[in-house]
Amino acid sequence: MNKVLLKISYIGTEFAGFQKQKDQMTVQGEIEKALQLILAEPTTLYGCSRTDAGVHALVYFASFSTNSNFDVKKYPQAINANIHKDISVVEAKLVHEEFHPRFDPIYKEYIYNIWTSKSRNPFLEKIAYHHPQPLDTDKFCALAPLFEGAYDFAAFMSSGSDVKDTNRTIYYCKAEFNGGLLRLKIRGDGFLYNMVRIIVGTLLEASKKQEAVDIVGIINSLDRTKAGPVAPAKGLLLSDVFYGKIKEHNNEGSESINVTYKVMQNS
Amino acid sequence: MNKVLLKISYIGTEFAGFQKQKDQMTVQGEIEKALQLILAEPTTLYGCSRTDAGVHALVYFASFSTNSNFDVKKYPQAINANIHKDISVVEAKLVHEEFHPRFDPIYKEYIYNIWTSKSRNPFLEKIAYHHPQPLDTDKFCALAPLFEGAYDFAAFMSSGSDVKDTNRTIYYCKAEFNGGLLRLKIRGDGFLYNMVRIIVGTLLEASKKQEAVDIVGIINSLDRTKAGPVAPAKGLLLSDVFYGKIKEHNNEGSESINVTYKVMQNS
Repeated sequence: MNKVLLKISYIGTEFAGFQKQKDQMTVQGEIEKALQLILAEPTTLYGCSRTDAGVHALVYFASFSTNSNFDVKKYPQAINANIHKDISVVEAKLVHEEFHPRFDPIYKEYIYNIWTSKSRNPFLEKIAYHHPQPLDTDKFCALAPLFEGAYDFAAFMSSGSDVKDTNRTIYYCKAEFNGGLLRLKIRGDGFLYNMVRIIVGTLLEASKKQEAVDIVGIINSLDRTKAGPVAPAKGLLLSDVFYGKIKEHNNEGSESINVTYKVMQNS
Repeated sequence: MNKVLLKISYIGTEFAGFQKQKDQMTVQGEIEKALQLILAEPTTLYGCSRTDAGVHALVYFASFSTNSNFDVKKYPQAINANIHKDISVVEAKLVHEEFHPRFDPIYKEYIYNIWTSKSRNPFLEKIAYHHPQPLDTDKFCALAPLFEGAYDFAAFMSSGSDVKDTNRTIYYCKAEFNGGLLRLKIRGDGFLYNMVRIIVGTLLEASKKQEAVDIVGIINSLDRTKAGPVAPAKGLLLSDVFYGKIKEHNNEGSESINVTYKVMQNS
């Protein structure tokens, strides 16, 4: 049995999330269909995250097991030739059979884009939430780092999750405002259901109020009703998933895989 | 008579260029249609550049004259509510009647994006030319600045232009390679028909050859057949148009307009 790890990039606008669902177009469903064409057998794909409908991924990892000896280096071109153009397989590697893309990450990183100008931005239409109403962006940027640290983030989880332990560590949470674009970057050992979008919703709500907002107090309340609304999916991008060294299976023995993939370049 | 200057941004993929053409969707045609709805009279728009089909604009300026006293500050929202979503009017100002967006620029700047990885990039699909074949990007970056200077660029003009004086000054021409994206930025006092795309085509051709290529020799030949092919429109973006100080008509008297508009932010 060979375990193949795919590094993927996709624009989520057209998909009902990563995870396969009946009668809906999903990233998992589309890749499994392409693999069926290539391998002529059904394959089950395991993803690194249950990204929601409309959320994007600059970087996403998913694995599958197969008895086929199809040349692993040829998967990206073979899958890309048979799949929706908003998905791209960037790289494929053979990995150890105990590797799991969802449980093994050391950290994940998300970006949330907010376009703040009154006029829409056609270049950011798909990958930013347009917020044309007045907003104190300095306040947004000043409050963001208060989410850094090890906390019980129960107040920042939507219902519908069966997760019991709501403790997470946020290593990095910073926002920058540049040329109309307010961008939050957040890195943590894991994220609860809708956690990033509720953090953004809370920061947006605070940035529209005159009075001071006690972010740490909201976190410590463990009370979902104290935090803000869930910000729209379209502004959210999974931007990095870091596994440390991944043990590979290949003729040259184990080596590390570079999992950092920056797709949006400086202008 | 009021002269109104619009600052626009658009993704060119769906349009047959800026300039109005019979039975084709163009940027000029769409804005004139929106103005007809707002002002209930026909209006003629004058653009800063005859951008071709498929070329994009992070920044574009166009002006029109009207007897209407419609509040100039309300044009962006009014036009955006009545136009194709790939066009956005960012700003509107009253300017002096002698101002002309095409003849008055001090410089124009273009960006050309080349995505060089084997796999496509869904996030750059519309605004980069995908070139998956091997390419010496170091050579591309080293040769680009040779286009800087005052030259007769006759070798870098497609036929079909009635321009007589082919002398132009390139103030800046640099390329950077970062994370798979090769990006050329070029600034000049003016550009001949297809000039940037032929410069990119020439640099691409040179970067696929083993032997040295004499860029200045090609320029000095004044011979179109010595330069490379016209690179695809989809990678080209008009990124800046600089007029210096624009005299405005408003109640507070003349002031400058900030014409630099950076839309693609650092990740």
